Amino acid sequence: MTTHHGYGDIKLYAGTGNPALAQKISDYINIPLSPWEIIDFPNENLFIKLGGSVRGQDVYIIQSHSRPVHRNIMEMLIAIDAVHRDSAGRITVVMPYLAYSQSDKKDQPRVPITARLMADLIEAAGADRWMTIDLHADQIQGFYKIPGDSLYAFHLITEYLKEKDLSNSVVVTPDLGFAKQGRNYAAELNTPLAFVEKRRMGNTGKKSALSLIGDVKGKNVIIVDDLVDTGGSIVKAVNLVKEYGALDVSLVFTHAVLSGSALSRLGDAPIKEIVTTDTLPISAEDRLPNMTILSVSELLGEVIIRSHEGRSVGELFNE
Amino acid sequence: MTTHHGYGDIKLYAGTGNPALAQKISDYINIPLSPWEIIDFPNENLFIKLGGSVRGQDVYIIQSHSRPVHRNIMEMLIAIDAVHRDSAGRITVVMPYLAYSQSDKKDQPRVPITARLMADLIEAAGADRWMTIDLHADQIQGFYKIPGDSLYAFHLITEYLKEKDLSNSVVVTPDLGFAKQGRNYAAELNTPLAFVEKRRMGNTGKKSALSLIGDVKGKNVIIVDDLVDTGGSIVKAVNLVKEYGALDVSLVFTHAVLSGSALSRLGDAPIKEIVTTDTLPISAEDRLPNMTILSVSELLGEVIIRSHEGRSVGELFNE
Amino acid sequence: MTTHHGYGDIKLYAGTGNPALAQKISDYINIPLSPWEIIDFPNENLFIKLGGSVRGQDVYIIQSHSRPVHRNIMEMLIAIDAVHRDSAGRITVVMPYLAYSQSDKKDQPRVPITARLMADLIEAAGADRWMTIDLHADQIQGFYKIPGDSLYAFHLITEYLKEKDLSNSVVVTPDLGFAKQGRNYAAELNTPLAFVEKRRMGNTGKKSALSLIGDVKGKNVIIVDDLVDTGGSIVKAVNLVKEYGALDVSLVFTHAVLSGSALSRLGDAPIKEIVTTDTLPISAEDRLPNMTILSVSELLGEVIIRSHEGRSVGELFNE
Amino acid sequence: MTTHHGYGDIKLYAGTGNPALAQKISDYINIPLSPWEIIDFPNENLFIKLGGSVRGQDVYIIQSHSRPVHRNIMEMLIAIDAVHRDSAGRITVVMPYLAYSQSDKKDQPRVPITARLMADLIEAAGADRWMTIDLHADQIQGFYKIPGDSLYAFHLITEYLKEKDLSNSVVVTPDLGFAKQGRNYAAELNTPLAFVEKRRMGNTGKKSALSLIGDVKGKNVIIVDDLVDTGGSIVKAVNLVKEYGALDVSLVFTHAVLSGSALSRLGDAPIKEIVTTDTLPISAEDRLPNMTILSVSELLGEVIIRSHEGRSVGELFNE
Amino acid sequence: MTTHHGYGDIKLYAGTGNPALAQKISDYINIPLSPWEIIDFPNENLFIKLGGSVRGQDVYIIQSHSRPVHRNIMEMLIAIDAVHRDSAGRITVVMPYLAYSQSDKKDQPRVPITARLMADLIEAAGADRWMTIDLHADQIQGFYKIPGDSLYAFHLITEYLKEKDLSNSVVVTPDLGFAKQGRNYAAELNTPLAFVEKRRMGNTGKKSALSLIGDVKGKNVIIVDDLVDTGGSIVKAVNLVKEYGALDVSLVFTHAVLSGSALSRLGDAPIKEIVTTDTLPISAEDRLPNMTILSVSELLGEVIIRSHEGRSVGELFNE
Amino acid sequence: MTTHHGYGDIKLYAGTGNPALAQKISDYINIPLSPWEIIDFPNENLFIKLGGSVRGQDVYIIQSHSRPVHRNIMEMLIAIDAVHRDSAGRITVVMPYLAYSQSDKKDQPRVPITARLMADLIEAAGADRWMTIDLHADQIQGFYKIPGDSLYAFHLITEYLKEKDLSNSVVVTPDLGFAKQGRNYAAELNTPLAFVEKRRMGNTGKKSALSLIGDVKGKNVIIVDDLVDTGGSIVKAVNLVKEYGALDVSLVFTHAVLSGSALSRLGDAPIKEIVTTDTLPISAEDRLPNMTILSVSELLGEVIIRSHEGRSVGELFNE
Repeated sequence: MTTHHGYGDIKLYAGTGNPALAQKISDYINIPLSPWEIIDFPNENLFIKLGGSVRGQDVYIIQSHSRPVHRNIMEMLIAIDAVHRDSAGRITVVMPYLAYSQSDKKDQPRVPITARLMADLIEAAGADRWMTIDLHADQIQGFYKIPGDSLYAFHLITEYLKEKDLSNSVVVTPDLGFAKQGRNYAAELNTPLAFVEKRRMGNTGKKSALSLIGDVKGKNVIIVDDLVDTGGSIVKAVNLVKEYGALDVSLVFTHAVLSGSALSRLGDAPIKEIVTTDTLPISAEDRLPNMTILSVSELLGEVIIRSHEGRSVGELFNE
Repeated sequence: MTTHHGYGDIKLYAGTGNPALAQKISDYINIPLSPWEIIDFPNENLFIKLGGSVRGQDVYIIQSHSRPVHRNIMEMLIAIDAVHRDSAGRITVVMPYLAYSQSDKKDQPRVPITARLMADLIEAAGADRWMTIDLHADQIQGFYKIPGDSLYAFHLITEYLKEKDLSNSVVVTPDLGFAKQGRNYAAELNTPLAFVEKRRMGNTGKKSALSLIGDVKGKNVIIVDDLVDTGGSIVKAVNLVKEYGALDVSLVFTHAVLSGSALSRLGDAPIKEIVTTDTLPISAEDRLPNMTILSVSELLGEVIIRSHEGRSVGELFNE
Repeated sequence: MTTHHGYGDIKLYAGTGNPALAQKISDYINIPLSPWEIIDFPNENLFIKLGGSVRGQDVYIIQSHSRPVHRNIMEMLIAIDAVHRDSAGRITVVMPYLAYSQSDKKDQPRVPITARLMADLIEAAGADRWMTIDLHADQIQGFYKIPGDSLYAFHLITEYLKEKDLSNSVVVTPDLGFAKQGRNYAAELNTPLAFVEKRRMGNTGKKSALSLIGDVKGKNVIIVDDLVDTGGSIVKAVNLVKEYGALDVSLVFTHAVLSGSALSRLGDAPIKEIVTTDTLPISAEDRLPNMTILSVSELLGEVIIRSHEGRSVGELFNE
Repeated sequence: MTTHHGYGDIKLYAGTGNPALAQKISDYINIPLSPWEIIDFPNENLFIKLGGSVRGQDVYIIQSHSRPVHRNIMEMLIAIDAVHRDSAGRITVVMPYLAYSQSDKKDQPRVPITARLMADLIEAAGADRWMTIDLHADQIQGFYKIPGDSLYAFHLITEYLKEKDLSNSVVVTPDLGFAKQGRNYAAELNTPLAFVEKRRMGNTGKKSALSLIGDVKGKNVIIVDDLVDTGGSIVKAVNLVKEYGALDVSLVFTHAVLSGSALSRLGDAPIKEIVTTDTLPISAEDRLPNMTILSVSELLGEVIIRSHEGRSVGELFNE
Repeated sequence: MTTHHGYGDIKLYAGTGNPALAQKISDYINIPLSPWEIIDFPNENLFIKLGGSVRGQDVYIIQSHSRPVHRNIMEMLIAIDAVHRDSAGRITVVMPYLAYSQSDKKDQPRVPITARLMADLIEAAGADRWMTIDLHADQIQGFYKIPGDSLYAFHLITEYLKEKDLSNSVVVTPDLGFAKQGRNYAAELNTPLAFVEKRRMGNTGKKSALSLIGDVKGKNVIIVDDLVDTGGSIVKAVNLVKEYGALDVSLVFTHAVLSGSALSRLGDAPIKEIVTTDTLPISAEDRLPNMTILSVSELLGEVIIRSHEGRSVGELFNE
Repeated sequence: MTTHHGYGDIKLYAGTGNPALAQKISDYINIPLSPWEIIDFPNENLFIKLGGSVRGQDVYIIQSHSRPVHRNIMEMLIAIDAVHRDSAGRITVVMPYLAYSQSDKKDQPRVPITARLMADLIEAAGADRWMTIDLHADQIQGFYKIPGDSLYAFHLITEYLKEKDLSNSVVVTPDLGFAKQGRNYAAELNTPLAFVEKRRMGNTGKKSALSLIGDVKGKNVIIVDDLVDTGGSIVKAVNLVKEYGALDVSLVFTHAVLSGSALSRLGDAPIKEIVTTDTLPISAEDRLPNMTILSVSELLGEVIIRSHEGRSVGELFNE
């Protein structure tokens, strides 16, 4: 690896949000994780002490916003402060899954835009760059003034899917907000496209009706989304396409947030295969038998190397 | 009108981007436009001189980013600077149409996010607040750290449409990126929904194929979008729904950008009615016979009053 | 109450960190708490929606950093963002207990200064002012560029203590870092002063030896500190002064953090009275029989009024 | 060329403001211009895509503020944003001619200081350094907080003039604001000095009277200025010195803004030679027969090299 | 006086730089100076304590940068910090004479621009606005991002001079950098204009030759400048015009810096009258018999009132 | 020495605050001081011109805040500006003694926090890093957002003291604010510990009573503090421990501020040895016969080298 002298050496720090992924990244780029102490005091305050100096070095703090979410966000911010105050040469915060991305606009009055707040907090803490995968909306890139790498699991996932027979498949999005990305999947997999439409009913807006726009009858359905949280909507989508005559139903999403009773919901639904990634940790007991977990570690590792060496990340995807 | 003493008196300044709209706003809130000199020197440099002091006043600079776009953006920034240096109490920049909103993400490597740059320029110039209508993506709200009012022509347009017989109508979006907003129109108008899907063909990506997802046969189609620029895509959508058996086709959009040969394209297409607004000026000769132009002046005027008096804007829409 | 027109009306928002205290403040200044929705989603993300507009108003967000600490910090930051984006006139964040105040310096290399980071986060979120009680170190005031009110429970506590017979009392601090504040207590209560000194033993620094500097024999001891966390050090101090011949031992501290087994430790120790405040919530079952809880609500309420009216806070204490 | 490792490699980008000059700079420092796409959409919005990655590189964006001025300013700002978001190591914006430099003060109330606004915009976009030639006032350097190189065509021009017989020459400035720089020319060329004084007449200030202070009779006059815009003042100055008995009159200025009817005015005036530079492009048809155009490309190229290598620019001029 | 409620009440603080002027301003606007303690500790550190609260008030800190210059600058910055931390509503720093204005550009490499640094320091300390008189260069206005009032003693001085018989007078500037302002004096006083030109001789640049451009023979000369420092140049100019046949010579300047042996130089020179102002304090013993000191107190007082009330300052001068 | 290419070469500049120390640092790291001109003009304004370019270099400006304090602070800020505008690669300001550290909190209402203001000024001027020794309170580290090295003379001083027989010694602090650091000295020197307590008497607070907490009888006392200013308190402490039966009394402090009659006070007091450092210059005539001055030059030199090379500073102290 050619070193870009301006940024010192690569230093990798693994937050507690997804240590297994951090280790895989470390293995890929063949640089060990740097040691640090992270202590949770009884009063819940976090304490961090770097195991060695990062003066003038090119530091990457790897922290996924897994549960407990707020503790892990704060751990990340404190880590940035510690590294900044030790006079690091450059600080990149690597967030395979970035929390609060769904709060990306004021779609009603008197609410915050927490995804922008997150950017403000990260910049205020002292980060120089950021890196993440599959933002809920690409516009969140623009919430940051500091430069960053907004990556996609798209190639990873479509490479995996293209090894299958997709001749009788159709891509379906469970949400109209994901329609454009659904189109990208359908185009890359060379399938037709359909959508689940959700419409609120009555005045209270509590109840909603689902309908399907497009055709799934007698076809294998691939439902695609950026993340699955409680699994409520997605399982309703699975059932809806089944009602409309779908054959096998597969589920594809990047971020396995899997809150509340998501796992039992997914386990009970008529789903052939669930394809996801390790941007968030999935414990051994949470891995459903039909789950395929692709690793984003090579993607992140390659981008860290290119970022450090001053080489193009775009050409990694022939862009 | 109750005055909020903290912000002085309302002062309205009309940029050259849409003086007719500014005048209507002025009429609505019954406060005359403040005089200023705006000179275009032979070297193209702009000069602005306020006609009176704005010390401690609540200033609203109304500037739509009509053609010439860059001159009008710069006029707006210079106006902010002039008002700021005259010690205004608060500066709100009112941009009925905000240019560069389509450059809101890096959807390919090595490109700018000009919509964020616009926010940075406006904040750097010294604005305290912003106001706009129908952003291309709501996330652009988060590009601003200063607070703002992101308004919608939705109520204005749907009120107008609901006076018609929509019993056999369907809402169609010409672009999957507008699918969710299309759903909102369909829900408010109580119609079904369909989409035009555009997919690139071949390696070069120059050619693309259109298809329709959903059903329009024997129905009156209302094509909805946020803006019409060259009109190329929208006219293709009109023709596509006609091919699929649509009866009457109407076109609904907020921002009449109408670049290049848009007017002749729209004039030649089989469109029954074009419904748009005056966020951008449309000269008398450009008004097609089937064009209905709704005015956003009452909406903007009402929000300016409420903003000045410290009253809720959200409740204007029962939110 | 005279209103300072520049700041609109007072709006009080109660975070979930200490709602009982917020209610008492509201009662004192006779202004109801403003309604808002705070939702904890299954994915742990927080959602806030203000119940009404705060445009141009003088907003006070009352949030103590009680458990769960990081969730409550994030709730506070999100609330600031929501209020800022709704164009509040002025935003004061009232933190009766400010977390992370003990991380106020780099007393070893390669650690963060999280108390400064907290200030950076609060300023980045958009607060205009801050208010807190009994900072761990007064210098933390200087971590903020925005102005603030750093208040003291000192008068409240010493007024309470001076109603007792203190003729045979001595003030003791359990930590040399609190020596100067201990002197202030001793001076106000007109008692002598002594200190517990902690010194690390051996190379590892894990073990430490306690000794007493000053005289407590045959005296009633008042141990004073800013907070009690796990109670480990403080109970050791109680036992030490007992060994040195103290008669009755009382414990006085502002912030009842009371982590881990603090309550059982305090319950088992030979302590006559525990005097503390309600900067942090103490549930009914946690209230030890010998505990006196003074309320800081009048202090905070009075300062909010004076801050709003533009009157001196200092003269409240004859300063 | 020795590379300063901290700043990566030099990357030169040529804006559309003066491509010929950019090419000459590229030739001088023997580094090709980096490719990029610049598209003017029908709605006038600009799109930029870098042809390759600039991660960690030392980027120079060369953009002169020629016509269309506002488009070219915006192109420059968008280019800075694109390069910044691609994680460039350092960004220097090279503006051979900087627009709006004449708006450098509030010489009347309620006007902007657009030259400071320009600096704010450039810094907000993300530039790290700037470079320009012959600012209208040297104080404009101080409008920038980021460091920069404020260069002079003075040496280039005086070297050229000193090859002529100047024994019977006098330097004249057409404006008292340029008196001091006129003195520098006179001193370097070892000639006497005179000034044109313009004084407003009457109350309206529209009319003005010119007079000459100093002596030009029987002498060859060299009129010096920083720029010629419409040419109105300068041609009046030519005629005035002729009236006062000047022999040959030459015109010397750095920036050939040449707005409106400047060319015909200059062509008709009794001027022996016009000496200027290529900070702004002058098309073949605009080159008057008596025009000598000196190139600033070597000056800019040399300064770029020195800036990159961390060597003194001052010593280039023996300072 | 009408109060602008948004800024509370006027509070005037007098720094030690020119207490007599501050008192006169206080008298003019009929508001007493607010009390504060300013202590110079033996270690030279300054301590400031406001005598009363400024919460929400409209504060004016009056500080001229008289000797000791650096102490007085620091006193001003500390005062801003004290007032800011006491939650003032708005802070205006009034600097009748602003030090370091002559360091306003890099006219040679590797030097600072201290006048911009001064602006940065004032903004960093927390000032909201500034006010000053007769900047060395008007462009210094643009060094400030915060708004300000850049005032002129021009009207005050010319009103005074116009009461005399000026029919045989000529205005002379001792420096070409003041040529344009000299023209303004000449135009207002309806006199001709001449200049002293200084040109460096030889390589070292230590020696310089003076010459006169324009005509003074048999005329009364009024030498005008913004300030007199050591008086060296100005006395040379006096002697030069005398050599060229001037009759009476008067000296007019705003800022009486009067360093080193300025007073004796001025006292010895053939000067009829010295007209200056009280922007800087001139002790009784330093007042030469031929000195007329005009007070800027009414000018500053009037501008403070208008600034507070949100009224135009420009119209004070019919602009 | 290995060079970290990202930061260019080390450049050392010596301010006038402590040139002898700067020379020693230069000798230690074997890099000559870079030449610059520093001129004090008769009007007290300072002028700085760097003797050579610092483009892209790693610059260290060494300036102790000795007398005249405000001039030296301003010299430092101007030097930062000059170096910043010459495009230095990185700027570290080395302040062996940092003035105004005692103004580190609002311990009474309506006062500034000048130590934070100092940080703001330094950051506003353009410094990238800071370095200092023995801050009055370690929390002052957190006043800076830019990273820094807060060093201690502790090891230097205790190494010196440990060469003596300390078997019958006791460490005493003259101020309870220094109690914790006193404990560190006592622990390192393996001695007991005692404190002087100062308590205000009466209402005015002008008078105060001293008492001793702990035991000194028959022991050699080592009084430790961070600095000695006027020497008043410290000499009272010396006398107090003498009254309480101390044998030899030594005085240990880092910063020899020595204001007013400090030297005569110290000279007259019954002090065996005064141990201090050269963070501030002590002229030959001010060196009392019993004074030992340890040099911090090796400490600062070593930290500069490690900072430049990107190596740990903490491990210098086995931390």
